[in-house]
Amino acid sequence: MKYKARVSILAASACTLFAVPASAQFAKAEDAIKYRQSALFVMGQHFGRLGAMAQGKVPFDAKAAQENADVVAAMAKLPWAGFGPGSEKGAPNKAKEDIWLEPEKFKEHADKLVAESAKLAAATKTGTLEGMKSAFGATANTCKSCHDAYRNK
Amino acid sequence: MKYKARVSILAASACTLFAVPASAQFAKAEDAIKYRQSALFVMGQHFGRLGAMAQGKVPFDAKAAQENADVVAAMAKLPWAGFGPGSEKGAPNKAKEDIWLEPEKFKEHADKLVAESAKLAAATKTGTLEGMKSAFGATANTCKSCHDAYRNK
Repeated sequence: MKYKARVSILAASACTLFAVPASAQFAKAEDAIKYRQSALFVMGQHFGRLGAMAQGKVPFDAKAAQENADVVAAMAKLPWAGFGPGSEKGAPNKAKEDIWLEPEKFKEHADKLVAESAKLAAATKTGTLEGMKSAFGATANTCKSCHDAYRNK
Repeated sequence: MKYKARVSILAASACTLFAVPASAQFAKAEDAIKYRQSALFVMGQHFGRLGAMAQGKVPFDAKAAQENADVVAAMAKLPWAGFGPGSEKGAPNKAKEDIWLEPEKFKEHADKLVAESAKLAAATKTGTLEGMKSAFGATANTCKSCHDAYRNK
């Protein structure tokens, strides 16, 4: 059960965990929401192209794999700034309230994606489909586990 | 005046100019539109933070400037894949039809943004506000001139 007292303490924690320079804050909650949705969508499009190769739906293209994986790794760092305190609402979104109730756990998921997507980008440098597949799977698992915990249907 | 014959020739040109691997194509026009809008929005948010520093609205922070400029330079390469043939419609958007009627000119604007945002990222490595300001202005000009030509109000 979640208690309102915990909310304010955890909001303070969220301020620390997602600490960004004042210049990084969004003008309004709607912008933060749109930002995180945009970053996640761009990342998802590029990740999907790697998935299509991993699943043999399109031919493996080593150069394209490296380019797409580099974009995924770069984008993976961005969405989290859009989940700061005050961005729980302001526009339609699928983020569960738990993000703001247990921000340290949410951050663990974010950090795991950043780490695994970096490994995926490195794996694509080997230039082989096999080399990419397991890193792709590990990254996909971080997406799934975060979505299972923190994204509404 | 635009002629339908020119449209089909130029659509063929657009295929060449925006040639991407089959694995990079979008499942549907709606995704291409959402992709380019998302990439442009993320880029704009980071660019806006540099603008706030350039205009003295927030204190200059050399590290934040470098981080934001790096994101701008990376994002600057992405939106164009979302303007391929067939993405003229499919979701509400502000792109003028001219993009698909004169794709070579549109590409010049895109290339200019990529070039100027790379210079901006380099300029932020000097660590000074003055060093950043003129590169910021040059980049902002590329945004403006492309929007003036190709974005509806």
